Amino acid sequence: MKISWSAYDTFEANFRPLVVVELAKDTKDETKEWLTQKIVEKKKNGGAQLLVKPLVKDGEKIEESHNIYLVGGSHLRLLLGAETVGLVKECNDNTMRAFTYATRNAFKDFAEDNHDFLTMAECQYIIKHELENLRAKDEKMIPGYPQAKLYPGKSIMRRLMSNGILIQVFPLHDTEELKKLKHTWYGKMRLSYQPLDEIRCYFGETIALYFAFLEYFTFALIPMAVIGIPYYFFDWEDYDKYVMFAGFNLLWSAIILEVWKRCCAVMSYRWGTLLMKRQFEEPRPGFHGVLGINPVTGREEPVYSSFKRQLRIYLVSLPFVCLCLYLSLHVMMIYFELEHQAHLYHEENQSDLSSLILYVPSIIYAVVIEVLNRIYRYAAEFLTSWENHRLESSYQNHLVLKVLVFNFLNCFASLFYIAFVMFDMKLLRQSLAALLITSQILNQFVEAILPYWLQKRRNKRVKKKVKGLEIDTDLSLFEQVNLEKGMDTYLGTFDDYLELFLQFGYVSLFSCVYPLAAVFAVLNNVTEMYSDALKMCKIFKRPFSEPASNIGVWQLAFQAMTVISVVTNCVLIGMSPQVNALFPESKIELILIVVLAEHLVLAMKFLMAFAIPDKPRDIQTKLAKLEFESLEALKQQQMKLAAESLKEGMQK
Amino acid sequence: MKISWSAYDTFEANFRPLVVVELAKDTKDETKEWLTQKIVEKKKNGGAQLLVKPLVKDGEKIEESHNIYLVGGSHLRLLLGAETVGLVKECNDNTMRAFTYATRNAFKDFAEDNHDFLTMAECQYIIKHELENLRAKDEKMIPGYPQAKLYPGKSIMRRLMSNGILIQVFPLHDTEELKKLKHTWYGKMRLSYQPLDEIRCYFGETIALYFAFLEYFTFALIPMAVIGIPYYFFDWEDYDKYVMFAGFNLLWSAIILEVWKRCCAVMSYRWGTLLMKRQFEEPRPGFHGVLGINPVTGREEPVYSSFKRQLRIYLVSLPFVCLCLYLSLHVMMIYFELEHQAHLYHEENQSDLSSLILYVPSIIYAVVIEVLNRIYRYAAEFLTSWENHRLESSYQNHLVLKVLVFNFLNCFASLFYIAFVMFDMKLLRQSLAALLITSQILNQFVEAILPYWLQKRRNKRVKKKVKGLEIDTDLSLFEQVNLEKGMDTYLGTFDDYLELFLQFGYVSLFSCVYPLAAVFAVLNNVTEMYSDALKMCKIFKRPFSEPASNIGVWQLAFQAMTVISVVTNCVLIGMSPQVNALFPESKIELILIVVLAEHLVLAMKFLMAFAIPDKPRDIQTKLAKLEFESLEALKQQQMKLAAESLKEGMQK
Repeated sequence: MKISWSAYDTFEANFRPLVVVELAKDTKDETKEWLTQKIVEKKKNGGAQLLVKPLVKDGEKIEESHNIYLVGGSHLRLLLGAETVGLVKECNDNTMRAFTYATRNAFKDFAEDNHDFLTMAECQYIIKHELENLRAKDEKMIPGYPQAKLYPGKSIMRRLMSNGILIQVFPLHDTEELKKLKHTWYGKMRLSYQPLDEIRCYFGETIALYFAFLEYFTFALIPMAVIGIPYYFFDWEDYDKYVMFAGFNLLWSAIILEVWKRCCAVMSYRWGTLLMKRQFEEPRPGFHGVLGINPVTGREEPVYSSFKRQLRIYLVSLPFVCLCLYLSLHVMMIYFELEHQAHLYHEENQSDLSSLILYVPSIIYAVVIEVLNRIYRYAAEFLTSWENHRLESSYQNHLVLKVLVFNFLNCFASLFYIAFVMFDMKLLRQSLAALLITSQILNQFVEAILPYWLQKRRNKRVKKKVKGLEIDTDLSLFEQVNLEKGMDTYLGTFDDYLELFLQFGYVSLFSCVYPLAAVFAVLNNVTEMYSDALKMCKIFKRPFSEPASNIGVWQLAFQAMTVISVVTNCVLIGMSPQVNALFPESKIELILIVVLAEHLVLAMKFLMAFAIPDKPRDIQTKLAKLEFESLEALKQQQMKLAAESLKEGMQK
Repeated sequence: MKISWSAYDTFEANFRPLVVVELAKDTKDETKEWLTQKIVEKKKNGGAQLLVKPLVKDGEKIEESHNIYLVGGSHLRLLLGAETVGLVKECNDNTMRAFTYATRNAFKDFAEDNHDFLTMAECQYIIKHELENLRAKDEKMIPGYPQAKLYPGKSIMRRLMSNGILIQVFPLHDTEELKKLKHTWYGKMRLSYQPLDEIRCYFGETIALYFAFLEYFTFALIPMAVIGIPYYFFDWEDYDKYVMFAGFNLLWSAIILEVWKRCCAVMSYRWGTLLMKRQFEEPRPGFHGVLGINPVTGREEPVYSSFKRQLRIYLVSLPFVCLCLYLSLHVMMIYFELEHQAHLYHEENQSDLSSLILYVPSIIYAVVIEVLNRIYRYAAEFLTSWENHRLESSYQNHLVLKVLVFNFLNCFASLFYIAFVMFDMKLLRQSLAALLITSQILNQFVEAILPYWLQKRRNKRVKKKVKGLEIDTDLSLFEQVNLEKGMDTYLGTFDDYLELFLQFGYVSLFSCVYPLAAVFAVLNNVTEMYSDALKMCKIFKRPFSEPASNIGVWQLAFQAMTVISVVTNCVLIGMSPQVNALFPESKIELILIVVLAEHLVLAMKFLMAFAIPDKPRDIQTKLAKLEFESLEALKQQQMKLAAESLKEGMQK
């Protein structure tokens, strides 16, 4: 049997396509040949040892799909890959452990012939990881493209991507599973919990955690909404009653984020990501520089001086952000001018129309804010990319910081100005309502309705080629691939979290002035859940599953917002007529008491964050148990070694 | 050669005594026999495989020392022990790595015959670790003591200790090294840097870090002191100038602690403790409970319900602490009454004597505070011990919290009262001076002079038996052991840090009212360094070296103090006549501006703590390199396994 293992693997009978690799139409044949060879080549020869097949229609290769390849892997290969990426799975004794092939029989549901042990999303994640780690050995360039330079250790797929030879790599939908997921997720026409475990199985932990947070956050808003409703119905227009509401608000916002950490730990333990070891971070795709020696890895790779990056950040990005912030404040002042004009007009022409006109400036401002936010977002992405960060995490942190600061100011500056400079509570409420509702409507439109409509249009065009309109079980593989490759790419959870963050701001910063904000937020979140679900299942290409054990930098952002909301709410309480009435003579005493109360609340918040453990006790025990076991194993190993060494020492 | 390895080891020619084990005078012979057998027994039979010898005088066993044993270990045994405890050492390529016997030749200064590769302190730490981990196998009790129950896995030394059979275990001084250390540390009569590396070699990282922090802190105080001196000389009695000082104070205190973290990381990387893995924590010696199954280890050990502990904490400890706090406030009110009486007396009899009497209440109060602090300390230790914490770290945290809260209130409550209730800046300055100076003098006396005098007296008594007065090179081993076993035991760095913490409070909380505080603090710290050095070398038994990579909970305590000092300093600035003069009409405006400034400073502090990396870049790179290497090694191992598995899979 002299047949090579890789060749044998490639033509495995039950080849299951998992990932689609689309090359440029005009890719040279030698490049294709070289790439597919690399993919099937054995690990020890620097390949990925995966299975690859060109996309065929009814068994024949046809012109229009000669640049599309399907990648899969043998069952054994995927299990070994699961070990490489460090997947954590449940064992027979209900503990979570890092999967290793050697100990495979200790894992729940493992059987040599059970091909469902790894979910399809996990298999796709493994393949993505293996493809990205396909590295050049001694090739100096990509065959057929002398301008696409390679050096030892350079990721081949990234070079192909940056040279435009590789169009995209995306995981295939599982039509059966997707149908089931759609049904449990939004198929039933009644409110139900999010099927988080199913979402996690299909889309991975990052997206499941987003939906978990969205759901948790919505539930957390319900008490606020319930307390807020009577304020509307009984028309408690006097700001007195709002003091109570603000007090509740303070307590509430301090608690929910601490509790979320614990919920999150429970989930990510169940999903295995809490225990997953951080992989070594490779440079991000866009990173460039002159070839040098990386001090950490000792490998040759592009190096970019951190001093130059600092220069770009402090001399270009920072001034630009400040300029944008100034512009945003300028726009705000124009809004107040318009507002003033509208009031004058209303006073001159007392009519229904003129009272409607009162709302116009707010709505225009809300639209302008949304537009500015979106434009700024592109600028921020461009700038952060130009800063040339080596790691994706560092890129993300700088991007999030830029975007958050601007969005925060853009959305809330006018409210701060109205509340603490103009002291106009009526206008504050009106603006808050206008901003909140407009931004919610705009978001729903831009995020869900517009893409859905675009997708419908696009599908109609594709319809001529393939039968179905949507991903469906009765599509052939050829049709499915052609349908999916034209779909939009999901760009991650950034925008979704940002939207929630701003909403949280509207609800917590000033809600004691407008308690209905929580009601609108709850309503919005319920539809948001559905529209987000719809967009994940119907509009976008399936995203690669991405392990995550928490919501990362957003936890910090939300916590920062609660700190700010303590300050704003304390000030609003101090400004309320009810509290002012208690100190008819001495304003100073009032201010001092408000400041003291604010400090106490802040101190309590920090103490609480410190005192409430981030993980529930049972998770802590389970983690301690795992740590203990690994320490014991190490000790055993050392003792064996010690005994041997002592024996050797004696014999000498 | 049928001689057993352990027997061979025990009578090794060049036995170097490292640790002294003192048993009770009336210990039964069978117990001694059993214990020494346990210590020399092979690892695989549950022994420690160390060397042990009874203490002899001129080669003869004598009556008065028949209960004292010397423990050592063969060179090979200690090297293997270094691996077990996870010592990190420098390699030939200047990186720090966990020592393993297999890779021993990669380490700097390693040679098979170099017995100085491990310092004596490290050897002693290893022996302590091995002795503590000497566990019962199937013994049901300690032979000869049926009441001293054992169960599988129970630490034998701890049971011996809790039953009073074991008096103490302590490491021997190295007379040669100690002489050298004394010379470099305080032998030269000029100011010099602390010989931190030498201290670390001799006393271990915990103590070296304390001296490093003491030195760093003193240097950090010098700018404050230099700025503070002109206030005294030019008699800037008007509080106006203090505003500038307070501003500097705010900046300074925010920065020094962040910088310390970096310095600390550099040191602990050099000493190897930054990389040292945390060992699994065993229950603390005093922990008791009914035998049960530990959910983490699965072993039988005493279990105490956490609910009962919570009850003890919240129903007894918390009320007790509150009562003590109330008592402390009561004492404070008495002090103010005395102060008032003294003033009345002074006004009636204007004389030099009566102006001296003005200081009397402050001094009495300072003494009372010190006494209360010390009494409370014992109560806190008793209570925390009674709370029955399972882990030493949890015990320490609860103790530190109790002691800190009380000491903080006890020392600073009167100052807060004077500053923010009585608004009497003159009295504040006077009280601050009295408190600071009295507490410093008292501390120096109780900590150094008193023990030194007691030690001298004790030594005189010992003198009749042994020749020398101090540990000296010309003492015989027998004399040395007898001298050292009578010395006081060093109880850890707690009191020393607490003293620094309170001093930091005096300097940072109100120093803009009394800039000389920093000068006194610097002076005190310089003498403190000498007296602490003296007490480590002359008064106390040598303590076991204890690895540590930072100053632990004290970092947090000092940071909390800086936050409080931002608040107090802002308020003091707001109260200063100079600032008040800027807002002649509106006090409200002044208060609002002060509050705003305070919030800005606090926000800046948190941003700074967030932005300044805790480790310098080169340490980060080195750590990343180590992590990368271990990940690479893991990957290599997995790839080898994968190749084998695939081959197997094909053959099937």
